[in-house]
Amino acid sequence: MMRTTPNEPGTHYDASGNREQRTTILFTIQDQVGALDECLRALKKVDVSMTRIESRPSRSITAGYDFFIDIDANTKEVVQKVIEAIKAVSVVKDVSAISNLDDVVGGSSDKSPDAVPWFPRKVSDLDTFAEKVLEMGEELSSDHPGASDPVYRARRLEIVNKAKEYRTGQPLPRIEYTEQEKETWRQVYTRLRSMYPKYACREFLHVFPLLEQNCGYGPDDIPQIEDISRFLKDCTGFTLRPVMGLLTPRDFLNSLAFRVFHSTQYIRHHSDPYYTPEPDCCHELLGHVPLFADPNFAELAQEIGLASLGASDEDIEKLATIFWFTAEFGLCKEGDNVRAYGAGLLSSFGELEYALTDKPEKRGFDPSQTAIQKYPITEFQPVYFVADSFHDATNKLREFNKQMRRPFQLRYNPYTQSVEVLNSRDTVQHFARTIRNEMQLLTSALEHL
Amino acid sequence: MMRTTPNEPGTHYDASGNREQRTTILFTIQDQVGALDECLRALKKVDVSMTRIESRPSRSITAGYDFFIDIDANTKEVVQKVIEAIKAVSVVKDVSAISNLDDVVGGSSDKSPDAVPWFPRKVSDLDTFAEKVLEMGEELSSDHPGASDPVYRARRLEIVNKAKEYRTGQPLPRIEYTEQEKETWRQVYTRLRSMYPKYACREFLHVFPLLEQNCGYGPDDIPQIEDISRFLKDCTGFTLRPVMGLLTPRDFLNSLAFRVFHSTQYIRHHSDPYYTPEPDCCHELLGHVPLFADPNFAELAQEIGLASLGASDEDIEKLATIFWFTAEFGLCKEGDNVRAYGAGLLSSFGELEYALTDKPEKRGFDPSQTAIQKYPITEFQPVYFVADSFHDATNKLREFNKQMRRPFQLRYNPYTQSVEVLNSRDTVQHFARTIRNEMQLLTSALEHL
Amino acid sequence: MMRTTPNEPGTHYDASGNREQRTTILFTIQDQVGALDECLRALKKVDVSMTRIESRPSRSITAGYDFFIDIDANTKEVVQKVIEAIKAVSVVKDVSAISNLDDVVGGSSDKSPDAVPWFPRKVSDLDTFAEKVLEMGEELSSDHPGASDPVYRARRLEIVNKAKEYRTGQPLPRIEYTEQEKETWRQVYTRLRSMYPKYACREFLHVFPLLEQNCGYGPDDIPQIEDISRFLKDCTGFTLRPVMGLLTPRDFLNSLAFRVFHSTQYIRHHSDPYYTPEPDCCHELLGHVPLFADPNFAELAQEIGLASLGASDEDIEKLATIFWFTAEFGLCKEGDNVRAYGAGLLSSFGELEYALTDKPEKRGFDPSQTAIQKYPITEFQPVYFVADSFHDATNKLREFNKQMRRPFQLRYNPYTQSVEVLNSRDTVQHFARTIRNEMQLLTSALEHL
Amino acid sequence: MMRTTPNEPGTHYDASGNREQRTTILFTIQDQVGALDECLRALKKVDVSMTRIESRPSRSITAGYDFFIDIDANTKEVVQKVIEAIKAVSVVKDVSAISNLDDVVGGSSDKSPDAVPWFPRKVSDLDTFAEKVLEMGEELSSDHPGASDPVYRARRLEIVNKAKEYRTGQPLPRIEYTEQEKETWRQVYTRLRSMYPKYACREFLHVFPLLEQNCGYGPDDIPQIEDISRFLKDCTGFTLRPVMGLLTPRDFLNSLAFRVFHSTQYIRHHSDPYYTPEPDCCHELLGHVPLFADPNFAELAQEIGLASLGASDEDIEKLATIFWFTAEFGLCKEGDNVRAYGAGLLSSFGELEYALTDKPEKRGFDPSQTAIQKYPITEFQPVYFVADSFHDATNKLREFNKQMRRPFQLRYNPYTQSVEVLNSRDTVQHFARTIRNEMQLLTSALEHL
Repeated sequence: MMRTTPNEPGTHYDASGNREQRTTILFTIQDQVGALDECLRALKKVDVSMTRIESRPSRSITAGYDFFIDIDANTKEVVQKVIEAIKAVSVVKDVSAISNLDDVVGGSSDKSPDAVPWFPRKVSDLDTFAEKVLEMGEELSSDHPGASDPVYRARRLEIVNKAKEYRTGQPLPRIEYTEQEKETWRQVYTRLRSMYPKYACREFLHVFPLLEQNCGYGPDDIPQIEDISRFLKDCTGFTLRPVMGLLTPRDFLNSLAFRVFHSTQYIRHHSDPYYTPEPDCCHELLGHVPLFADPNFAELAQEIGLASLGASDEDIEKLATIFWFTAEFGLCKEGDNVRAYGAGLLSSFGELEYALTDKPEKRGFDPSQTAIQKYPITEFQPVYFVADSFHDATNKLREFNKQMRRPFQLRYNPYTQSVEVLNSRDTVQHFARTIRNEMQLLTSALEHL
Repeated sequence: MMRTTPNEPGTHYDASGNREQRTTILFTIQDQVGALDECLRALKKVDVSMTRIESRPSRSITAGYDFFIDIDANTKEVVQKVIEAIKAVSVVKDVSAISNLDDVVGGSSDKSPDAVPWFPRKVSDLDTFAEKVLEMGEELSSDHPGASDPVYRARRLEIVNKAKEYRTGQPLPRIEYTEQEKETWRQVYTRLRSMYPKYACREFLHVFPLLEQNCGYGPDDIPQIEDISRFLKDCTGFTLRPVMGLLTPRDFLNSLAFRVFHSTQYIRHHSDPYYTPEPDCCHELLGHVPLFADPNFAELAQEIGLASLGASDEDIEKLATIFWFTAEFGLCKEGDNVRAYGAGLLSSFGELEYALTDKPEKRGFDPSQTAIQKYPITEFQPVYFVADSFHDATNKLREFNKQMRRPFQLRYNPYTQSVEVLNSRDTVQHFARTIRNEMQLLTSALEHL
Repeated sequence: MMRTTPNEPGTHYDASGNREQRTTILFTIQDQVGALDECLRALKKVDVSMTRIESRPSRSITAGYDFFIDIDANTKEVVQKVIEAIKAVSVVKDVSAISNLDDVVGGSSDKSPDAVPWFPRKVSDLDTFAEKVLEMGEELSSDHPGASDPVYRARRLEIVNKAKEYRTGQPLPRIEYTEQEKETWRQVYTRLRSMYPKYACREFLHVFPLLEQNCGYGPDDIPQIEDISRFLKDCTGFTLRPVMGLLTPRDFLNSLAFRVFHSTQYIRHHSDPYYTPEPDCCHELLGHVPLFADPNFAELAQEIGLASLGASDEDIEKLATIFWFTAEFGLCKEGDNVRAYGAGLLSSFGELEYALTDKPEKRGFDPSQTAIQKYPITEFQPVYFVADSFHDATNKLREFNKQMRRPFQLRYNPYTQSVEVLNSRDTVQHFARTIRNEMQLLTSALEHL
Repeated sequence: MMRTTPNEPGTHYDASGNREQRTTILFTIQDQVGALDECLRALKKVDVSMTRIESRPSRSITAGYDFFIDIDANTKEVVQKVIEAIKAVSVVKDVSAISNLDDVVGGSSDKSPDAVPWFPRKVSDLDTFAEKVLEMGEELSSDHPGASDPVYRARRLEIVNKAKEYRTGQPLPRIEYTEQEKETWRQVYTRLRSMYPKYACREFLHVFPLLEQNCGYGPDDIPQIEDISRFLKDCTGFTLRPVMGLLTPRDFLNSLAFRVFHSTQYIRHHSDPYYTPEPDCCHELLGHVPLFADPNFAELAQEIGLASLGASDEDIEKLATIFWFTAEFGLCKEGDNVRAYGAGLLSSFGELEYALTDKPEKRGFDPSQTAIQKYPITEFQPVYFVADSFHDATNKLREFNKQMRRPFQLRYNPYTQSVEVLNSRDTVQHFARTIRNEMQLLTSALEHL
């Protein structure tokens, strides 16, 4: 039996959650004898706790170094202290801060350093999300069916702790699921699986049997995210990483820029296999995973992610709404039919059936409208947005994103799994060269076609 | 004291080594109900040992699947048996084999399947190199200074076994080095470090202090390849993976296509810190590693790697020679000066000094000439090639590579860390779309510059 | 004094006019000995009047020839006769017809040759528009203020005849204007000129003084289109060509694809300098010309033109409506203000003033909406569309044009001033190579910036 | 009978000729009220003869104007006077001069304005070459077979005067050839035509019958350059323009940048149809014209032209030598054969036959070597250079040209038939946008292929 809140699994993040206090300071120095050491010495003298000090060849100037400093700081004063210490070093130039501290971001009429909301620069920066205390991270809310089941809670905590400890580069945790957990999975899997041929979009149906053949999908056991992640990597470069529970919308969307999807590994309470108030492995693995294997959907998801990096709170809200109406509750055209591709639908047979009836309103996906559409989170959606295709939705999103005002242009570098700011002649030049080389290859390929 | 074979560390591979018996069969099927299962059933009926059966969304046709089958086979007959079984399946199309079996490659006048030498398609395919028995993999040749030292041999075997067991996706093995090993390192490190400012190229000198600051480089301990690999990943996307010893030139070069460098972790025998007949961690970490952090050198190295995929034996020899005269013994111009960037030089103070005197002959790097230059491996080089810049060398190499006759065009996809064959309208189209998107971003970046 | 039909000058074409009976047959032959002559002989045997037989190196196949045959034919039967004669020649392939004959276009279930509405392939094909009998070409409608003035009519005919005789490649006719004509011009010029600073868009105001300085614009004489055309050529490649009067929308829009604008040279009747029921040189030279010197507007205009080539009648109507609401009656944003850029406004001070008041409705330019908006032609517009910028309007138009269903992709080649159909591997390949070369140049330019 | 100087027709220019005294001053002004007029007034006050004053929308800054001033000046002093007058105007910026005056070019340690050798910026600038007094322009050298034939000289002068008067935009002069002239043509045409199938390259043979079918090529009359020019325009955008006689190498090569070829219209003296000491219409129409219809050759020729714009005298000499060994005396590979494509060969049956024997030396085309090869001009060539293909030669030339040191990057804009200096963010940006649009079209074309 279905509860009345079938779509809550669609909420991957705690929109009301407090923002983390997090600041990264970046600066560039010109390469000269002893410059690197001088910087390091200066930083060591500052009496502030820094959780990271990294130096790298500079991406923005030819013979320079970039420094990345993470500060464990609660106040603007501390950040300013570090910035001043850095500025005092003679070789330093281009100091900037990305921070979640409100008073650093907007409080200063002195716009130097030009602070923007903190965002991860490389895939390992996502590690900073791992231990954030979130609703339902380690504790369960009272309306959770397992809230008063101490065995369930202990088991959930055990799994959550593996996510908490996980760091980039490690193999993903493997969970040996209990018979009870497997039984819950079997019931969900069996029922949804039988519905997909009628309701799911072509891309989903194309990938699903591959997951059965390669990743252990089937009614008998819960698949392991390590196996799935490797499969996705082969298909589109997407990877999974374990998560304790709800992230902030900003963190959750930011990770998509790196083609990383945060996936829970625990399963809903066995007392009600058809209901869960939070995302669980059924929602992730059945609802979300298949489409991350589709190149066009992967591009759409990453595009949302890239737009979210350093975006204003207002823009984050818009992007989260777009995510809601696409990756969670999206519909798409297939010839004269409409099919579902949103994970909130594909993991909820009640709403999956309802969404494709005539009852709800259906509008064409149009980012500027979709981004500001209000939606309920405890009942079926009254409005759905229908994409012409993932490719078309991505193009529209790209146009929409151009209107967002960020003081920089970003490029994702899939080699380094990091984000580059295209703000200097050198970076732009290097990027142009890359395109030229690709154009050369394309021309050769056309000649050999 | 220097031995007479100072440059052998430059040989990363056993050119005389037998080729592995390795065959991958690829085929594509059209998506239709039950097609995937039908294929799998057909494969299971064949009485041949298959070490991998993978199915993926097809890259070459829109609604299709690609299969990858690895056969553990020694004869053409076995391969043909599998191919015929596959061809008997109705939905199958485009069967091809990449194989190291001579009789599959060239023996058949029937050119279908059009066999080319085996090559890795994705980064995890490099795992197949791990256990290959190589000269000095587990055994030492008699002229090795540690050959008759049972303690050294046991220690070496211990480290080599970690490489043997390593598989893609795992953290790289950390070695706790002994005091004796550290002492050997100290001597090599100290002496070479003092020479670099005078002899090493600008890019090397730019990166070296970063390795000291971020990866534990210094006289006191041997750095860990896990730390270095993460640093390189940030810089250029290059990563290290441990290796038992010498690979075949083909395998060694192939891995560069994926921006993967095979690095040993053991150190030379303490009896002679200034000599080693095989590459050891001094050669890798001091000679090779720094330049893999340079974007232009990384591009050059990958370009050699990409050209080696599926290349004929003759072309492999040419590319190995180019690698020798660039990554191992390359010199480059710096204004009016010449500096060293080859690892064979930068890890050998004898030859480093010699190479930059007037004694050896120096010619401009010209791939068509360089590729066929003979060279000694047990004495200082009589001829070196001088690159104008890494960028220029890469351009020249690209022109040179166009002359190699391979029946396909390859593209490296850094998202999936795999190699795509640009042989269909769909792949070319998708690639063109990628370039268009990048061009869009470049245009935006120029507008915001 | 103003009449009630201030905007008719905006109609450059006779939407109700009959379509010309015009057919071009194209075919390709493989190069082999005697093939060209064989084709020519076969064509000469057909008893049909052909106004053009041209052979050229083929653009679609490597060693082939393209033939272009214009038939002076009224019926499908004649066209079919020619097509069959051509098909009978052994070396011939890829026969297709572009025709204005309804029964050739759609009447045949046999879709080979796949006929599309006739369109010009190269700039000299526009010569076929020159002698078309149009409303007000040689005759005046009864409501024309000069209709009953025999002197005016004789003078008008004299000027019109120069347009009728003009052919591509000739210098444009110079008109020695009478004192009376100059006086009419002076009144219009003086009054409009004084309004521009307040109402005209920035681009218009930027160019206007250049026309005064370089092309003889001023109150004292009517500028010569030869001088203007050379100026425009320098700025954007647009050129003018004289026209007798109204063209069909299709012909008029088609010419924009070649960056050619058809301009009348006669002037309105002196009895009412502030009114004309047809476009005259005041409308062309004051309203249209300045913006054709702006690169972004030129791109917009050409984009409309390219979309119109071979378009269906329905699409032509949409594009003509878009032209109406942009080039004739377009408004654009300038910061917080709105300014005029449409020629119908900029040559009519009554509507110019009115359009920028609050009286009419103003909507954002959105091609899919704009294309279907109804409009009156004998009174001030009730609705105007406001472009964000010419660049943005062009982007939106490009997206809109993608939805038009034409069975080919066209590329304008500015070297040959002709239109290429990108329908073969060879043409696409050649185009890709062009882009690669440009990309190379762009990269070099970035390096030298 | 053949004379001993069969190859002189290859010399289109007088290498020893004096350079013209020609200076163009360019400057940019910011758009502001009255700025244009202020500049014009300032220029009028300077007591120096200016043959052109043009103002245009600026290509290098967004809201600016570019001025082009041609000075009829013999000394640096005059030029400096004008420059100072310009600099005194407040709105002026970026003054630069392109000049043929030695003391402006190199004499000044004051490098502002940064003068480079004069070069044409747009196609109509080629008009300045028309009246230059050249050897054999109006007079004949004493060794010319027609030197002592007053009838021939009068006729030649008559034709030459048409070239002298020709200006860009006019139809090309049509010559009614005499029976005697036709007879000379017939003899040359007939003999060469019979040799082509054996000696001429594939591209030449592909185009030649088209010239017969479309442009009046045949034994009976001399074709008209107007007809040929229109044909070439359709094929590659090349056009012909009449020339009095020999141009300087600089002028001759410069015109190729605009895809313009200077062609004489007179014919050799009837007394010896197989000899001429200067280029005549036989050499141009039979030797040169056919290849200008080939897209790849056209690209090669334009590339030489673009490299010559503003080049140093030394580089002009190299480029003229490259022209000599390609467009005049070039050979190319066709499978295992070698064929001729140089006009000096294709218009001289003696050398055409000789060149393809084993007697002369044949080397691969390599711009850096070819550019410095000495050559005789009064006998058969001892050395020829063999191109792999026009495409390959163009690529090599492009690489070679990169080494030339010019303080700017040029782009040819085929719309405006002018040359743009890519020296500002705005021009580069606009160029990038152009490429992006093309990339968009290419992607669409691939989707529809």
